[in-house]
Amino acid sequence: MADNEGAPPPTTTQDERDLLQYQSRIDRPLTLKVPEFSRDERLRHVIFSRQFSVDLLEDLAGTADKIRQLSKVRAGQDFLIGLLSHKRTMLYFTQPSTRTFLSFMAACQILGITCNEVRDPSTSSETKGETRFDSIRMFSSYFDLIIMRSPVARLAEACAYLMNDLAATGNRSVPIVNAGSGADQHPTQALLDIYTLQRTFQFASPKDSPIGTRFDEIRRQFPQLTRGLAHKFYGFCGDIGRGRTVRSLADLLAGYEGVTLAFVAPRHPTLSLGDDLRQRLLTCGVRIIEAESLEEPIDGRPLIEQLDALYMTRIQKEHNNPADEAAFTAIDFSRYKLNRELVSRMKCYAPILHPFPRDQHFGEIPPEIDADPRAMYFRQARNGMWIRAALLAHIFNVDHQISRYFHERFEG
Amino acid sequence: MADNEGAPPPTTTQDERDLLQYQSRIDRPLTLKVPEFSRDERLRHVIFSRQFSVDLLEDLAGTADKIRQLSKVRAGQDFLIGLLSHKRTMLYFTQPSTRTFLSFMAACQILGITCNEVRDPSTSSETKGETRFDSIRMFSSYFDLIIMRSPVARLAEACAYLMNDLAATGNRSVPIVNAGSGADQHPTQALLDIYTLQRTFQFASPKDSPIGTRFDEIRRQFPQLTRGLAHKFYGFCGDIGRGRTVRSLADLLAGYEGVTLAFVAPRHPTLSLGDDLRQRLLTCGVRIIEAESLEEPIDGRPLIEQLDALYMTRIQKEHNNPADEAAFTAIDFSRYKLNRELVSRMKCYAPILHPFPRDQHFGEIPPEIDADPRAMYFRQARNGMWIRAALLAHIFNVDHQISRYFHERFEG
Amino acid sequence: MADNEGAPPPTTTQDERDLLQYQSRIDRPLTLKVPEFSRDERLRHVIFSRQFSVDLLEDLAGTADKIRQLSKVRAGQDFLIGLLSHKRTMLYFTQPSTRTFLSFMAACQILGITCNEVRDPSTSSETKGETRFDSIRMFSSYFDLIIMRSPVARLAEACAYLMNDLAATGNRSVPIVNAGSGADQHPTQALLDIYTLQRTFQFASPKDSPIGTRFDEIRRQFPQLTRGLAHKFYGFCGDIGRGRTVRSLADLLAGYEGVTLAFVAPRHPTLSLGDDLRQRLLTCGVRIIEAESLEEPIDGRPLIEQLDALYMTRIQKEHNNPADEAAFTAIDFSRYKLNRELVSRMKCYAPILHPFPRDQHFGEIPPEIDADPRAMYFRQARNGMWIRAALLAHIFNVDHQISRYFHERFEG
Repeated sequence: MADNEGAPPPTTTQDERDLLQYQSRIDRPLTLKVPEFSRDERLRHVIFSRQFSVDLLEDLAGTADKIRQLSKVRAGQDFLIGLLSHKRTMLYFTQPSTRTFLSFMAACQILGITCNEVRDPSTSSETKGETRFDSIRMFSSYFDLIIMRSPVARLAEACAYLMNDLAATGNRSVPIVNAGSGADQHPTQALLDIYTLQRTFQFASPKDSPIGTRFDEIRRQFPQLTRGLAHKFYGFCGDIGRGRTVRSLADLLAGYEGVTLAFVAPRHPTLSLGDDLRQRLLTCGVRIIEAESLEEPIDGRPLIEQLDALYMTRIQKEHNNPADEAAFTAIDFSRYKLNRELVSRMKCYAPILHPFPRDQHFGEIPPEIDADPRAMYFRQARNGMWIRAALLAHIFNVDHQISRYFHERFEG
Repeated sequence: MADNEGAPPPTTTQDERDLLQYQSRIDRPLTLKVPEFSRDERLRHVIFSRQFSVDLLEDLAGTADKIRQLSKVRAGQDFLIGLLSHKRTMLYFTQPSTRTFLSFMAACQILGITCNEVRDPSTSSETKGETRFDSIRMFSSYFDLIIMRSPVARLAEACAYLMNDLAATGNRSVPIVNAGSGADQHPTQALLDIYTLQRTFQFASPKDSPIGTRFDEIRRQFPQLTRGLAHKFYGFCGDIGRGRTVRSLADLLAGYEGVTLAFVAPRHPTLSLGDDLRQRLLTCGVRIIEAESLEEPIDGRPLIEQLDALYMTRIQKEHNNPADEAAFTAIDFSRYKLNRELVSRMKCYAPILHPFPRDQHFGEIPPEIDADPRAMYFRQARNGMWIRAALLAHIFNVDHQISRYFHERFEG
Repeated sequence: MADNEGAPPPTTTQDERDLLQYQSRIDRPLTLKVPEFSRDERLRHVIFSRQFSVDLLEDLAGTADKIRQLSKVRAGQDFLIGLLSHKRTMLYFTQPSTRTFLSFMAACQILGITCNEVRDPSTSSETKGETRFDSIRMFSSYFDLIIMRSPVARLAEACAYLMNDLAATGNRSVPIVNAGSGADQHPTQALLDIYTLQRTFQFASPKDSPIGTRFDEIRRQFPQLTRGLAHKFYGFCGDIGRGRTVRSLADLLAGYEGVTLAFVAPRHPTLSLGDDLRQRLLTCGVRIIEAESLEEPIDGRPLIEQLDALYMTRIQKEHNNPADEAAFTAIDFSRYKLNRELVSRMKCYAPILHPFPRDQHFGEIPPEIDADPRAMYFRQARNGMWIRAALLAHIFNVDHQISRYFHERFEG
């Protein structure tokens, strides 16, 4: 048990062996691969967070906002439900995830897409010697979209190649959406994090009027503040090293101009910022700060007071190995938990995000924070539903229909 | 193992600890609590069977009857399916129950509500340290209604308080429907039992005509007989002490005038009428009879021959403790089983109910009774579907729409 | 463990005991039973593959073709989705089967039928002493159709009798569709195999024109060739003895005139053609060939070169008993696997079918064959969805509506 790297579980071995046929394509640089996942200037498969350009992120947010608005009235709901009522999707979740699963379900249902699911680690057919690719091809026979989550890194990517190959030979082929594949990618989580920031940094308020807006008011205190994600100071706190969502979000933020990213984690190779991500971010011109505490002074002022947004994470202790366990006893983890006092020192508009679930035993965000207006983590969930619906609308090419309906009925 | 009261399973402990924050509200008398579960003179959350007044029960039965009628023709079905097609529900069943689960599914589907489910005892997020209340709040982000069944007493009640608190602070909040919480409440089961009695005691028949009705005919033999649930003699037989459905139904029947309730069970504290319920019923002015056999003479005549309705139950032997097991060997359980001879002595119109499943090994209702016109237990299941649909229509405030459509198209 | 025939698992025993009440009806000859599963000259229950006459098979294929065509355009999809949107089905799969399950789900969804499922080997109620027939009757209370798959032979048949008895006594009764019951029957798999052959033997091609057709072209090489399933040479290869799908398909092919069926399997009682099926086929006038290899000469030419269609199967080694295991080591199983060279010797139009899943470790069909135009096994899956939708349309009596709509909108 102490060293299980030498003996991976049999299913992984099987899947990994199956992946070999796609290995040379998987090993190419991302820039070569990304275009293969688009078709007609539109995402065909959603595999990597880096498929989302800033323009596309703005587009998707616009669609999500419209879907959200339309969902407030019955006519709008009925319009949305009718949009893709002829489509059937397969949610193939061989790695458990209630939150992502239900979010996609709800997103599909908003657009009228019928949902089907396979959630067992192996389908019954796989126990009879079927490869995972035969399973995927079966799903593509019955359904119009495959949303998949798997503990196997690169599996979703390989399935996208399979679908591309089928299309190239005139066979039936459907889009693949990666809902989390192993430790490497979780693109739609990054999408919802970005969307939450996009909404927050609109600084809109129901009380806005020609006389004054919330943005005007905040600007009295922060005159430099601009709308949008560019030129902002983002903090990430907790399990930076293993946080797949941190990695994906940082990748997307790097697309915006003049951002600073601060990573607050214990100085331990398992938990702190990885070389890979650091290099990538530096190449994009991101300013990086690494700290061991939210109160660490940066340019003479505590980090927590300078942040425009704070992204908290859970310490993924279920992935600790024995060496980690031993080393972690010496770490003061209290530095990676919020409390009322810390939150009170944050900028009044700075959202607190968390990919959830949070760990009530560790307590990185205690419930006493929930009522604070900066606490955005519950809204994040609902944002995830809207932005995933927008992504589905994009994939199935009905986003323009949504815009048209919205402008005719709600703005005309 | 012999005494597990001292060591509850860990999940219960966790849930119970989580419940503590709501304890002071839970401990209030029911009369104080019930109003909090209504909004605009309409049930907002369905937690206790005692939320149903006799007026509301009549209302719901009326809606259920209309839904049933509308479902017989395609136009009516289409009308119903369109009513709530914009709503999504979460069936959160952490205590297994195929029957109640499917009944709610079907009820939702009749009104076009899209169903989602989580049926594992713990969601994957809960294993990562998430509280059940974070899970519930996540569900409320994605869905418009939470129907929940849990082995934990009071959990549904606590979730209703959570939702009320969210509403009070301007946050998203959805209705909670209790589909069985621990040993204490199962309000929608009581609802379907009542609805079955309401329908039976209409004494309607397809053969009724201006010349004569089934009711007239029965009245020749029973001149005192009136329509409705008041002034009737109800028998409950079997596992009275542990029968959650017995308790809930008795509570509702106590709202009707002049009812007599007979409880037929072995004289053993686990199985016989509890002090709590006895006191409550007496306070309501119910006449109570306790007997050890269906044939016991009451006022000189065997009980079985006097009943207007008989509610049979299964002995829940899976909840026996070792002391029960020992004591039960001395009990003659044959007294708590029906047979053809016993049934033949019942009043011709007296329905036999059972919350199901029945136990084929114990045999409280042997299959030979199934063809008897008094056997209502299979119709009960279908009644449950209709009355749950009526309840959902009430919660979502579309019951008046149903009435209007019904009167315009089917009676106009 | 070595001899588990003497000690069947308890659930089987229970189910088998429950089946006894229907035993005398089950034991009747098929010709007496089949009419009981029809109503108004239309299938009411689908239990045996031999319920499908050649006429009915042609009818169903016609409906399936129309559904397939309609599904290509949005108006057609919307028409189909509306057809049975008022119907709710129960997929009661107590024997796991992802493929058949999803195929039925998709088929239902094409016609707008709402799906519900119970997939546990035992429902929670059955653990409380409920018989499987009480469960089935509960399902029939809530749903309009029960599609069931069970490891228990004859269970679906018995449930059909239960439903017929209910109908006869004026009770609610719904159709039963057998989606695989034990080792004996899997009628809808045979249906999709036949439909794949029907489509293949239309010899249609998108390139067909008044100037020339694919059929004309093939006929230059095979002048005797006719359209349709009659007068053709069919090969079955692999696990003939235990292949439930082989048996069902052979039964249906026996209804066509002048067919030859070749069974290629090791000469071992577990794997080769059973006496039962041989007798039945001979009675129908089928010409039977039994061979031990696909290359065995028949009338002087290797079998593989003469086939009009080849049905490959997986060796169901999970059903091997110890005696089989020992005997099988002496068998050269390479004879029951395809490879490129073998396929290249087949007739250019001869489809290769496989009920799937295929076994990648055994390799009866290696992936290198997948791109061959004769490989029909992936299309088979999609055909299964269309023909199951056609079957549902037949059961619910909307097939004529489909024909009418098709002719008015697509041919008019």
